[in-house]
Amino acid sequence: MKNIRLPFGVQDYMPQECYNKELTQEKLGNVFSRHGFLRVGTPAIEYFDAYDEVLSRASQNKTFKMTDSDGSLLILRSDPTLQICRMAATKFDAENINKVYYLENSYEYISDPTTARSREFPQAGVELLGNSGNAGDIEILTVAIESLLAAGLTDFMLEIGQVGYFNGIAGEAGLCEKDAGELRSLINKKDMLGMEMFLSGKNVADKYVAQFMMLPTLFGDSEVISKARKGVVNVKSNRALDDLENILAALKAAGLDKYVSVDLGLLRGDYYTGMVLKGFSSQLGLPILDGGRYDGLCSAFGITLPAVGFSIGVKRLLIALEKEGKLVPCGRSGYAYISDGKDHAFEYGFVSKLRNGGAKVEKCFFDSRDALVGYCNSAGIKNAFVISGGKVEYVKGGIKECGK
Amino acid sequence: MKNIRLPFGVQDYMPQECYNKELTQEKLGNVFSRHGFLRVGTPAIEYFDAYDEVLSRASQNKTFKMTDSDGSLLILRSDPTLQICRMAATKFDAENINKVYYLENSYEYISDPTTARSREFPQAGVELLGNSGNAGDIEILTVAIESLLAAGLTDFMLEIGQVGYFNGIAGEAGLCEKDAGELRSLINKKDMLGMEMFLSGKNVADKYVAQFMMLPTLFGDSEVISKARKGVVNVKSNRALDDLENILAALKAAGLDKYVSVDLGLLRGDYYTGMVLKGFSSQLGLPILDGGRYDGLCSAFGITLPAVGFSIGVKRLLIALEKEGKLVPCGRSGYAYISDGKDHAFEYGFVSKLRNGGAKVEKCFFDSRDALVGYCNSAGIKNAFVISGGKVEYVKGGIKECGK
Repeated sequence: MKNIRLPFGVQDYMPQECYNKELTQEKLGNVFSRHGFLRVGTPAIEYFDAYDEVLSRASQNKTFKMTDSDGSLLILRSDPTLQICRMAATKFDAENINKVYYLENSYEYISDPTTARSREFPQAGVELLGNSGNAGDIEILTVAIESLLAAGLTDFMLEIGQVGYFNGIAGEAGLCEKDAGELRSLINKKDMLGMEMFLSGKNVADKYVAQFMMLPTLFGDSEVISKARKGVVNVKSNRALDDLENILAALKAAGLDKYVSVDLGLLRGDYYTGMVLKGFSSQLGLPILDGGRYDGLCSAFGITLPAVGFSIGVKRLLIALEKEGKLVPCGRSGYAYISDGKDHAFEYGFVSKLRNGGAKVEKCFFDSRDALVGYCNSAGIKNAFVISGGKVEYVKGGIKECGK
Repeated sequence: MKNIRLPFGVQDYMPQECYNKELTQEKLGNVFSRHGFLRVGTPAIEYFDAYDEVLSRASQNKTFKMTDSDGSLLILRSDPTLQICRMAATKFDAENINKVYYLENSYEYISDPTTARSREFPQAGVELLGNSGNAGDIEILTVAIESLLAAGLTDFMLEIGQVGYFNGIAGEAGLCEKDAGELRSLINKKDMLGMEMFLSGKNVADKYVAQFMMLPTLFGDSEVISKARKGVVNVKSNRALDDLENILAALKAAGLDKYVSVDLGLLRGDYYTGMVLKGFSSQLGLPILDGGRYDGLCSAFGITLPAVGFSIGVKRLLIALEKEGKLVPCGRSGYAYISDGKDHAFEYGFVSKLRNGGAKVEKCFFDSRDALVGYCNSAGIKNAFVISGGKVEYVKGGIKECGK
């Protein structure tokens, strides 16, 4: 017999999980669509060198790679956002498209077979392209909250940050880009010891060291913002805080503020330039939603186009929904039947009528009605009938007798 | 600027095409589901050595390959049917699952960059597992026809063959398996010159040579079957013809016979063991549907399980639908608006009401109503309004004035 294990980090979706995955994606898609986002599709295979500049070295190492027939390096989709930027740079303008969403599998090459992470994972995301400013951030946060609610999740929180706040202090403190990047990453990990060690080796005024060291603690409700203002004088940081205040006020006006908290230590390392967000379910340690403003990303593909968006890890969302008891049973057929095949015109007419009325009617091939009933009992199918000699006889549920 | 070409044979789906693809897949899925098939999902990445025995050398060469961190050879999904067999062998029995469907992208490694074929293509298919015999073939053909009709296609034809007919003659004529395989492939290509050359080098009685040479001509309506019976005495061939007659009679009784024709020269090389089918639209030279009975395939994964199924090439179906004028316009938003952001509670209440009523309402970020109206005109959005000072003013379509 064959070795029929699956590679680590990928999975089959059995009917129950598949059903909930599709249903959840449909609910997310409906919210995106009602907000005017149009669905697009991207290929799973692309050239590595289309993305090498926008992917960090670490991200490059986490792509699945293949060689094409001409020697080109191919990668599997690692981040649909990058592909949307590519599409925006080449195709969207001509069709007046500025709001898109996707439902795609992404792939992360992980080399450690003991990892609990998925190497293939479904993502549902939106991208809002073009100048939209703070109002665009609010729209994206609104869509994020509505999506999770529509999926059925109730116990979740979006953490909102603003990388402009840190960038402002780093600029004022005179950190070079490389140092700022390293510090940002330490803050993002809330690695305060690492921060202290890093800052002690740099020529940074005590005042800024204190401000940096406070960053990992600047999370919670809107009061965090007043705390963050203290002593911070640069325009960039203060504008970032103004933006956050605007966002919180709008979400409060919309009655959505109970789903958000502030985290100024949320400093995504990748391509984010302003508001950033991360969504957590109380059921799960890992984020189920991830996003932010990335005003510089499209420039890698030759256009200047501010943008903001997020993506939902659908598998993680399903786990959170399951823990909240929100998954629904996959609908098996309402009817199953066997037939002697002697009057196919009658049989087809009868079952088509049921199916056209919306019922799921499953033809079975057992040689006895006992086998049919046994199957229906174990599969949870409510109604079973036998078609014989141009007549229908219910052997489970249904109308007990039903002539031609 | 980056090189942002796509590799050959893969594509982006812009909103219009993406919409029709999803809509079509939904229609196909609804038919599958009404017949009691349950959707499952398979990973895009699997071990090569799980499938090396069931893939012919030619098929092996047509898989995209990658190396995993432990040196294992990985392939991209090339045929969901093989994956379903693997799942059937390991997972289905415990859950009483015998009818499944899938909507997945498959991948074919083609090395010639001038190919017109897709290297990534969406497939929608069903598999009926377990003893189902001729009645199972009829059910699968019925689902195939209903699916294409539900997708909106009208001008199509399913060609039905039965590899048992050829196998019977080959056995009677004493051809070894290898020779039979080569001949089958020549017949399938209707390569009559090749057949003559091949047969002239073998020790095959004239009677069988004549029967083989007739095979590529045995296509058309049910009369083909009587023609095929002449002089053929082996049990296997005659049973194959009986089966075909049963199938045709049932489809006729169901009023579906206008969508089928017989082709005894349809001899799929791969894993098919009985009835085979291929669906063609008159709009397209390539088949849009492909399938048959594969009673031996599951044994490669350790179980004996007869099976029959088909898959639809969704992209090809979309091309055929487009040529039949059946594609529908992708629904842009019904409403677009801009807001001064001064009364977000009012704004969110107003647009949420529209959205909850099912409307697509797009928030825009233009700085003038002229820009908004211009956008709506070019994107085909019927209604536009401006929210300012807690009031709604329609500037295109809609109700002209609507206070707070």
